[in-house]
Amino acid sequence: MNRPYDTSLKKHEGNAVEQHEGDAPTPGRPRVVIVGGGFAGIAAARELRYAPAQVVVVDRVNHHLFQPLLYQVAGCMLADGDIASPIRELLASQGNTVVALAEVIGLDPAKRQIYLDLYPEHPFDYDYLVVAVGVETSYFGHDEWARFAPGMKTLEEGIALRSRILEAFELAELQEDPGALPELTTFVIVGGGPTGCELAGSFSEMFRETLAREFRRFDPARARVILVEAGPRLLPAFAPELAEKAHRELERIGVEVWLNSRVENIDADGVNIGGKRVASRNVIWAAGVQGAGLCGLLRGERDRQGRLVVEPDLTVPGYPEIFVVGDAASIRHGTGTLPGVAPVAIQSGRYAGQAILRRMQGGPAPPPFVYHDKGNMATIGRTFAIMESNRVRLSGRAAKLAWAFLHIWYLMQNEDKLVVFTKWAWHYFTRTRGTRLIEGRTMPPTKSD
Amino acid sequence: MNRPYDTSLKKHEGNAVEQHEGDAPTPGRPRVVIVGGGFAGIAAARELRYAPAQVVVVDRVNHHLFQPLLYQVAGCMLADGDIASPIRELLASQGNTVVALAEVIGLDPAKRQIYLDLYPEHPFDYDYLVVAVGVETSYFGHDEWARFAPGMKTLEEGIALRSRILEAFELAELQEDPGALPELTTFVIVGGGPTGCELAGSFSEMFRETLAREFRRFDPARARVILVEAGPRLLPAFAPELAEKAHRELERIGVEVWLNSRVENIDADGVNIGGKRVASRNVIWAAGVQGAGLCGLLRGERDRQGRLVVEPDLTVPGYPEIFVVGDAASIRHGTGTLPGVAPVAIQSGRYAGQAILRRMQGGPAPPPFVYHDKGNMATIGRTFAIMESNRVRLSGRAAKLAWAFLHIWYLMQNEDKLVVFTKWAWHYFTRTRGTRLIEGRTMPPTKSD
Repeated sequence: MNRPYDTSLKKHEGNAVEQHEGDAPTPGRPRVVIVGGGFAGIAAARELRYAPAQVVVVDRVNHHLFQPLLYQVAGCMLADGDIASPIRELLASQGNTVVALAEVIGLDPAKRQIYLDLYPEHPFDYDYLVVAVGVETSYFGHDEWARFAPGMKTLEEGIALRSRILEAFELAELQEDPGALPELTTFVIVGGGPTGCELAGSFSEMFRETLAREFRRFDPARARVILVEAGPRLLPAFAPELAEKAHRELERIGVEVWLNSRVENIDADGVNIGGKRVASRNVIWAAGVQGAGLCGLLRGERDRQGRLVVEPDLTVPGYPEIFVVGDAASIRHGTGTLPGVAPVAIQSGRYAGQAILRRMQGGPAPPPFVYHDKGNMATIGRTFAIMESNRVRLSGRAAKLAWAFLHIWYLMQNEDKLVVFTKWAWHYFTRTRGTRLIEGRTMPPTKSD
Repeated sequence: MNRPYDTSLKKHEGNAVEQHEGDAPTPGRPRVVIVGGGFAGIAAARELRYAPAQVVVVDRVNHHLFQPLLYQVAGCMLADGDIASPIRELLASQGNTVVALAEVIGLDPAKRQIYLDLYPEHPFDYDYLVVAVGVETSYFGHDEWARFAPGMKTLEEGIALRSRILEAFELAELQEDPGALPELTTFVIVGGGPTGCELAGSFSEMFRETLAREFRRFDPARARVILVEAGPRLLPAFAPELAEKAHRELERIGVEVWLNSRVENIDADGVNIGGKRVASRNVIWAAGVQGAGLCGLLRGERDRQGRLVVEPDLTVPGYPEIFVVGDAASIRHGTGTLPGVAPVAIQSGRYAGQAILRRMQGGPAPPPFVYHDKGNMATIGRTFAIMESNRVRLSGRAAKLAWAFLHIWYLMQNEDKLVVFTKWAWHYFTRTRGTRLIEGRTMPPTKSD
């Protein structure tokens, strides 16, 4: 095999760590490049920890994000460090694995080469490629809305949203013109899926409980939280009875739920919904996603969400050495496709790692990927959640307890578990919130600026 | 008194909180404006909690920073939220106090008016002004070095420094040219005061203990940490024996200490120190400070560090209603002036608050400000600290324990205490670090870019 850049990703002679067995990439060893350090990418890498290969995990950020809790960063409940761990640390004990902070800017599937932003001229060879790049926010063809209605996929977006909400209240406190208050204190969340519901519940409670005593010139409890859903009900992935309970809980804690309401336009001062105009400078987009980044570099069939349609063994048609896993993959399941949730990402990543290992060992082709449904959960506010699996349906406090237990359990880092548990317990009993920091001031004081 | 903007800072009728006794600013009540929500500003505000006045605390950030632990954010030990609390939350129970997220852009001492960036055309009246704006980094006339050698005063700088260090190691890991390694893995800290020593110790331990196992292509333990001090010894505020012990401890954990070494130039690829050239893209400036922001708007005598020279009652000569407190003030003490440390800030802020209260109540002029020396401490790495007061001198583990106890004690928020304690205990026993996140990638991969 042609390896024009074979010297790369070898140790530096002058400043090398002690050679441990299995540490050094031997020229003969195959190289597995995993793009993306999310649930799917990490799961794939972990399966390859004893593989006779050089594993390279490439991500454009240095951290693995515990995405299901991102809304808690926006809601000032957790700090960024609580839900993100360095990818390098997660894989520290895997001697055969190199972590690269870089962005993949090119792919040549015929030559089996990728290009990284750090060395745009130099190709890096791979023998197996695992595409685990996830999804990004989709505005359904209205990318011009992105400026006014940020999404909620990255840690930066979570922090920016937190800053934006707090800043809106700060501006409201200093506002001399009462007529300008509604656009500062109205929060519109577009999308009635789990993220939208979790955000809406978290915000409404924060305004009514945590912030209520702190402002002198207006009452944060009167801030409006509007959850907008184009379809006829919230949380379509759940059974109607459970979704209905979540709907009632949202309304109980002060969220206005607008169903069958389609967003027609978003600009700097507000949003048009089903013919109505709502003045708001705080619109959050939790409505849609599409296949991200590297997906654009791969040819092949897409589904409606722009995810790559894969073979039953999660490979790309015509390229048995390229796997697509996690949210980026459109994986058939029954009559539909699997949803973009953490259990699918973990199971598909693990499957790809095992399939690669098996092929390296010369074994037979693996059986097709089968998803084991572990159930689904969503949480509304401090004390309520819903959960649903083949066997159980739960709602209320018991479901919230199960939710908290499972999320703590799956937070990989031990320290994070302890800290998150401390913060949750504190929040549960005192109704205060921990990390209420504005990082950078970005909102103009008046919309005309 | 002329109050052209008297309608301001009143409640909004349509969206007002319930009227509590003492809540509303009565027109006849004097207004105390406190600029700065650091130790001094918060201490002044707290003294005025029962004052028959409207107290307005203005800061350009929304958080009070526990500055003595900022180096732990840079060193990945604590998260930003652990050492910063919303000013609004700290003062939530003071019904007579309004918090304003804004920057003071103008001051007219004759008219007793300030101008805020949100309303640049409209003056706000004050009856008393407390200037507690602190200091900013000073490059001794070489402001062009600021680009290459960031300071360590704000939370943003702490986070940026953390990102920069982690990013340098990420680039080193992917570096194809071993000749480019030294400039990426050499860290130069300018200034041998407490901040410089604390940073150097924290970095050296992080490279040798936490990161050592995580990189495959170079050994982080061989990264150089150079602490540069222009004077003949470290920590001049401490007794020579204690400073000498700290010096030895720094060397023991791998820091190169360069005394009598003056920085002559800093550019993108390195620093010139006493005729020598050190290749480094990681230079941190912990050498000097100067009076910040609002100080420039006040006329009057300055000391060498640009701090405002105040009267024995901490007022500005000629303006008995303007107090300058904390780091921004040059307060005579014996033959010199008081240092810019937290106890001075707290005591001077408290004094100003009490003096204003007394004057409002028509009492006699307060006696001059007297500083009660509570001692001084600095910490080096995981297990070592020095402390010194009139009565005790301590070094080693016992001092570190006292340091940890006092810092936890003074962290105001209860939740923060718990979380910081958990993190420190975890770090102490496992030698891992919690928050190793890169926020935004900023370093060009090669210096020529």
